[in-house]
Amino acid sequence: MADDKKLTPRATDFSAWYNELVLRAELADYSPVRGCMVIRPNGYGIWERMQRALDDMFKATGHVNAYFPLFIPESYLHKEAQHVEGFAPETAVVTHGGGKQLEEPLVVRPTSETIIYSMFAKWVQSYRDLPLLYNQWANVVRWEMRTRLFLRTMEFLWQEGHTAHATHDEAEAEARQMLGVYRDFMEGWMAMPVVTGQKTESEKFAGALRTYACEAMMQDGKALQAGTSHNLGQNFAKAFELKFQSESGTIEHAWNTSWGVSTRMIGGLVMTHGDDNGMVTPPLLAPIEVVIIPIWRKDEDRAQVFEAADRLRGRLRDWERREPARLRVHVDLREGMTPGAKYYEWETRGVPLRLELGPRDIASNQCVLVRRDTRAKQTVSLDTIGEDIEETLEKMQTDLLSAARDRMDKNSYRGDITYDRFKEIMDAGGFVYAGWNGDPKVEAQVKEETKATIRVIPDEEFRSADAPTRCMVTGEPAKHEVVWARAY
Amino acid sequence: MADDKKLTPRATDFSAWYNELVLRAELADYSPVRGCMVIRPNGYGIWERMQRALDDMFKATGHVNAYFPLFIPESYLHKEAQHVEGFAPETAVVTHGGGKQLEEPLVVRPTSETIIYSMFAKWVQSYRDLPLLYNQWANVVRWEMRTRLFLRTMEFLWQEGHTAHATHDEAEAEARQMLGVYRDFMEGWMAMPVVTGQKTESEKFAGALRTYACEAMMQDGKALQAGTSHNLGQNFAKAFELKFQSESGTIEHAWNTSWGVSTRMIGGLVMTHGDDNGMVTPPLLAPIEVVIIPIWRKDEDRAQVFEAADRLRGRLRDWERREPARLRVHVDLREGMTPGAKYYEWETRGVPLRLELGPRDIASNQCVLVRRDTRAKQTVSLDTIGEDIEETLEKMQTDLLSAARDRMDKNSYRGDITYDRFKEIMDAGGFVYAGWNGDPKVEAQVKEETKATIRVIPDEEFRSADAPTRCMVTGEPAKHEVVWARAY
Repeated sequence: MADDKKLTPRATDFSAWYNELVLRAELADYSPVRGCMVIRPNGYGIWERMQRALDDMFKATGHVNAYFPLFIPESYLHKEAQHVEGFAPETAVVTHGGGKQLEEPLVVRPTSETIIYSMFAKWVQSYRDLPLLYNQWANVVRWEMRTRLFLRTMEFLWQEGHTAHATHDEAEAEARQMLGVYRDFMEGWMAMPVVTGQKTESEKFAGALRTYACEAMMQDGKALQAGTSHNLGQNFAKAFELKFQSESGTIEHAWNTSWGVSTRMIGGLVMTHGDDNGMVTPPLLAPIEVVIIPIWRKDEDRAQVFEAADRLRGRLRDWERREPARLRVHVDLREGMTPGAKYYEWETRGVPLRLELGPRDIASNQCVLVRRDTRAKQTVSLDTIGEDIEETLEKMQTDLLSAARDRMDKNSYRGDITYDRFKEIMDAGGFVYAGWNGDPKVEAQVKEETKATIRVIPDEEFRSADAPTRCMVTGEPAKHEVVWARAY
Repeated sequence: MADDKKLTPRATDFSAWYNELVLRAELADYSPVRGCMVIRPNGYGIWERMQRALDDMFKATGHVNAYFPLFIPESYLHKEAQHVEGFAPETAVVTHGGGKQLEEPLVVRPTSETIIYSMFAKWVQSYRDLPLLYNQWANVVRWEMRTRLFLRTMEFLWQEGHTAHATHDEAEAEARQMLGVYRDFMEGWMAMPVVTGQKTESEKFAGALRTYACEAMMQDGKALQAGTSHNLGQNFAKAFELKFQSESGTIEHAWNTSWGVSTRMIGGLVMTHGDDNGMVTPPLLAPIEVVIIPIWRKDEDRAQVFEAADRLRGRLRDWERREPARLRVHVDLREGMTPGAKYYEWETRGVPLRLELGPRDIASNQCVLVRRDTRAKQTVSLDTIGEDIEETLEKMQTDLLSAARDRMDKNSYRGDITYDRFKEIMDAGGFVYAGWNGDPKVEAQVKEETKATIRVIPDEEFRSADAPTRCMVTGEPAKHEVVWARAY
């Protein structure tokens, strides 16, 4: 419900703004269990649209969905040495079931490599059984100490892709392909530009050969790791005896990849597009794209306005030109609430377009169309309103991406940057493209001193035309250009 | 992968047939965790289509989706006395998290009434906030001792609807409406006829005022409870202080309903339509509706047949008359496998239609169409194949429902039935519509002596025209006509 208290402005306290917005826009709420969130319909509606879009992309690239158990025998987690080191400290453990103590405790999955590859091992005998291209939509649990709604919660929803291949190169191509799918989704649907690249050894997934990531820049200049894709090599195949007979008759271990994105992306959406008035949802992901607000003062106008609003909704929903997806339209017929209060509430919730419809509008066969991001108003004829809405929604989707891209470019620093200047930038917020000698000790030192981490060794298209040749910290020859930022 | 061993016939051992079919059709597999299953793509694809169809029906009746935490504080379960009695013995309990023992253990949700109504209590103040019409797609865990794939597993996937209303009558109408939605889905999509009605006091949901259910008859004459809908009264509202200010200014407790169906329905699908050759999936729920098998003997034919098969697939997938959903077509291009082995495998997996396409078919611009349920073959022209396929799929969907309905009618026994005859029927399999004096002791006695339970007090349309006036067991005046059966 609307609350007339203004949000803390972003410039005053970005973190307070974020928390207030998520609650006020009814995206999520705190639950009675520490660190677990409730995803409310306005947030879950976004997740549903994310799921649908991603699922279509996964299927178009040949993947099928399956479901594996929530519980993992504790011993399974221990079969891959790096994996257990990374995940064991943050697991939730079931010790009792059906009133009795269990012989072997069960871990609530923090991720499903171990259980899935143990099943793959059962199903794969020959190279003919490969590749296996699986995806799972599921909840996972990681025992986090400091939680934030969507960004870091003990339980979250995600998808985890898991594949098995006959060769390293096939697995590498798959990991790369899915990183590309994520990027397409984040830019095309979320209107959130990302930098893609490879994680350093110290930042890679526990048990992976190589980890690739999509890193987005939030409005405060901090990075959000929005999706990762891992070439797992043969690490898990060896741990779980996932073997196959090759075409030439030899027995070999398979090569795996895994890749995932989660409800964390909704937090990214908030921090990419939200403003001091609340949520701004990109049209393609909005549970409601258009809200119609009937306006009346005199009681005798009410029936007429309600009827016109309802007729308009019907026309828009069945609007033929919009295929395959119908326009998602809501009419706010609540009584005892001023139009202003309704505007405020729907703005807070992030609905992309508002239609204001009063008796005089109806008389002139028109209505007022208001865009959520720019708050620009235009008066449009009811005869062409379908086209106007579609055009405005498309424009808004494109504009949101451009604005986010401009902001990312403006706050990305390249060229010769001293370590002192670097520290200033990290305090102000932004990405720094700097030379690095490749030494993990230097990486650890910078993290210790500035809280910044290497987000990625960027892919070619993101590298500077004139990349630094010296390490920013040591002045030694640079092995890579890397992207530094503080991160969520 | 195909396995040339025949399934145990249903007539020999229905239970062995079921287990073998589920594994052989790759619907599900056993997991390393006792009682938990892996849902394989051929089974999960059915679940995805079930989800999509039900979700559309829920939204069409005004419901929204949300997500609530997996973990429930143990104390919450204890707030509703009957509820804890019903569910506490079968919970999985998390006692450790992040390497430490928890102050209060967390229960893995067996169902979410307690956590959801505690949140509703936070969100609802006034009658204007009602009704809340929520649904959640989630996994739940119930510590079962004897498990069967799909039918009874420790973890399963389901949807749980949870609503809050201002009056008893509104809640009652909602519980009834959702029972109707379930019935429409089971008959319309699953081709599985059901008897609907009310559960007796001893069979109702722990914490409910009234429970309604859809009961289906499996091929062995046993009942499967396929979906339930509960009017929870004010029991949970009182336990969680879910209160609102009414229009007249008084403070009242809300009225709740909950309703759910689960992956158990896939087991129902198997036992309703499966045959001694394997799975038979109703076309509307089939992950693949049509499989094209190119046939060639000589190597020089291969390219031609592959190309024709691929062209046919393209034509069928883009077939314009099929809107909004496209035909789900797969071409089996595997080499080193005879056509016969492929037929066998796709039959086992339950694909509704098979198209056989060889060089001679191509020369005569035709192919052979084989229906999975009847195994009837017809030769059809490639010019009209779209229409032929659509017609055959529609016919198959209708025929499956008719066949199941005939079987249910044939194995439902009405009129004056002695308790001795009743016992014979229960041993052979079937539903008995009998008079009952309403005494729970009689109900318990019959259960003890015959393992049969009262499935429902049937809704009016299912009652016998000439309902028994005497209790089958005691001869006393009957209070209700009830449906007895052994059940899964």
